[in-house]
Amino acid sequence: MSVTAARGFVAAGVAAGIKPTGKRDLALVVNVGPQRCAAGVFTSNRFQAAPVVWSMSALAGGELDAVVLNSGGANACTGAEGLADASAMAEATAAAVNTEAGRVAVCSTGLIGVRLPLDAIRGGIADAAHHASADGGAAAAEAIMTTDTVSKQAAVTSEAGWTVGGMAKGAGMLAPALATMLVVITTDADLTPEQADAALRAATHVTFDRTDSDGCMSTNDTVLLLANGASGLVPDQEAFTEALTGVCASLAHQLLADAEGSSHDIAVTVTHAATEEDALEVARAISRSNLFKTAIFGNDPNWGRVLAAAGTTRATFDAEAVSVSFNGVTVFRTGGLGEDRSLVDLTPREVSVEVDLAAGSTSATIWTNDLTYAYVEENAEYSS
Amino acid sequence: MSVTAARGFVAAGVAAGIKPTGKRDLALVVNVGPQRCAAGVFTSNRFQAAPVVWSMSALAGGELDAVVLNSGGANACTGAEGLADASAMAEATAAAVNTEAGRVAVCSTGLIGVRLPLDAIRGGIADAAHHASADGGAAAAEAIMTTDTVSKQAAVTSEAGWTVGGMAKGAGMLAPALATMLVVITTDADLTPEQADAALRAATHVTFDRTDSDGCMSTNDTVLLLANGASGLVPDQEAFTEALTGVCASLAHQLLADAEGSSHDIAVTVTHAATEEDALEVARAISRSNLFKTAIFGNDPNWGRVLAAAGTTRATFDAEAVSVSFNGVTVFRTGGLGEDRSLVDLTPREVSVEVDLAAGSTSATIWTNDLTYAYVEENAEYSS
Repeated sequence: MSVTAARGFVAAGVAAGIKPTGKRDLALVVNVGPQRCAAGVFTSNRFQAAPVVWSMSALAGGELDAVVLNSGGANACTGAEGLADASAMAEATAAAVNTEAGRVAVCSTGLIGVRLPLDAIRGGIADAAHHASADGGAAAAEAIMTTDTVSKQAAVTSEAGWTVGGMAKGAGMLAPALATMLVVITTDADLTPEQADAALRAATHVTFDRTDSDGCMSTNDTVLLLANGASGLVPDQEAFTEALTGVCASLAHQLLADAEGSSHDIAVTVTHAATEEDALEVARAISRSNLFKTAIFGNDPNWGRVLAAAGTTRATFDAEAVSVSFNGVTVFRTGGLGEDRSLVDLTPREVSVEVDLAAGSTSATIWTNDLTYAYVEENAEYSS
Repeated sequence: MSVTAARGFVAAGVAAGIKPTGKRDLALVVNVGPQRCAAGVFTSNRFQAAPVVWSMSALAGGELDAVVLNSGGANACTGAEGLADASAMAEATAAAVNTEAGRVAVCSTGLIGVRLPLDAIRGGIADAAHHASADGGAAAAEAIMTTDTVSKQAAVTSEAGWTVGGMAKGAGMLAPALATMLVVITTDADLTPEQADAALRAATHVTFDRTDSDGCMSTNDTVLLLANGASGLVPDQEAFTEALTGVCASLAHQLLADAEGSSHDIAVTVTHAATEEDALEVARAISRSNLFKTAIFGNDPNWGRVLAAAGTTRATFDAEAVSVSFNGVTVFRTGGLGEDRSLVDLTPREVSVEVDLAAGSTSATIWTNDLTYAYVEENAEYSS
């Protein structure tokens, strides 16, 4: 049910002393083989954190032996010293698991602009390598939490017999390309680096890339896929991509459900768009409207705010033909008033908003959260 | 000091019964001449409210005799009936001030999707025409308030002797192109429609268009300029544009200072950009970051959130060369840590954030607000 669900992976989560609370703050995932295939996708933010720069370089060969992750500090905007720190984390990990630093990915999360306590981290890495086991997935998932209130894990085993499992963290700065988060997914399927990369890009394109909790893109977003072929099974590429997408979707959903201060998970679906880009542009504009997000917090099916947001886009549609539904109730139909808004019940956490552009045959969904007092509190009262 | 500061304009603000509170809700501004020159800029939202559609058409000839404005209902997303209502408002106003409906602009603000009470409005128009006077500017400014807590007025008289004065409303859905608001500006300078249009576009380009309180663009934004030449003075175009820009800047600042639930007015200035577009793209990305806005609410000079937002743009810059200052304290300098953040005092309402891109010689500022509990309350608890 986690990053150790697939055969041939061991993991650990330990308290290295990075977090002042003494909670678990360092995780290690090791691929025991036989193969060491890997793929990754990273933040498109131009202020890439040092561990992102390091891991992109490490991934160049399409193979990784291990991933070391820490919470308690993002090692972002830390300059050359930060890159040296990321390198030192990889070196310490390589020494502990008997490989080379260039085959170790590094992920960090926490406050931007703070140097990491390297001595504590080196101790944690040695400790984690000592304790890493096939039962360590849950502890590893716990060790990467920051403002997350629960750890996020998912796994699926195919009928053929191969398994995909993973863990994720992320609660704030949660907007795509990629959504702000760290994700490590493992599989015992037998894949080439090209197959792994294609499957990962396809899966993240429709899951993490469409998760937009608060519109803010992080400097550290990383999604890694490790594949070792330990099942001895070569999967059908389509079936594998589908299973991987399912694991990503589950993790993305868990991220939304635990997003900072949120009280609603909102699926904004745009239907009958002329193109996928149009559908995504409209859905994202709505998802990023603070007036829309506060209305949902107030359980108000405010279609006027939905239209005002849609009206800022360049998508193809005729304003007179658009319809808007909340939880299946069409409150605005083909440019005019529809059913009574009092028929809409927005008290459940899950909310579905559908905008029918009547301009084509394509649909897409962006998943977002509402904007609440608790979101403001969490991000105004505490530096993060 | 208002829309009646210039010679040859009369105005009134009355309680027509649109607002259930019984407060003033209908305003009238009449140009007594001798000339009737007019220019306008309108929301770029594709769901243009009926009064916007009407007023754009009325302005086609470059002349207006009067403007009628109401609060208590935006007449937006109301279809053909809404356009008929806007037309009826213009007709009633034309009858009351003895002109043609096609020479009357209409502005509405309030809840989207609600039909206006036409009988009440017709009574209000007759009442306002009866009471319109050169002292009516303050009442008119009051009558267009919605969630505004104070009315917004400004005026300036040039050394040459002509005057520019205006009024504005706007508290939520306050983001540009244009900022969500209604603005009427009058002048007794002698202008051609082309001169009025050029001056208005130049002035709004650097004031209202750079005001972005909450990132949400309205369906009703309207800025009108009426010029009657009553001073008998033909102004220097540059001097007039400067005076008009000053009035617009004052009104824009008053909008920010009264923005829904805000506790800080924030000037986000990007310096040393390669182009004006780059400077504006970076400044706007920062202004729309909820994590940045909540940090300012929490008096936290969180430069990491500033950089994370800047990093989502396509502007030309080298991440290693960027600097960030809060209220003059450079907390992040040329890609690394700068002065101690404890030196920054963010308790005053006015906050200045400067991002130096070190990529050119252009600067631009976007004015925004912080994100507070009160903003969430105002927009979650009340439909608007």
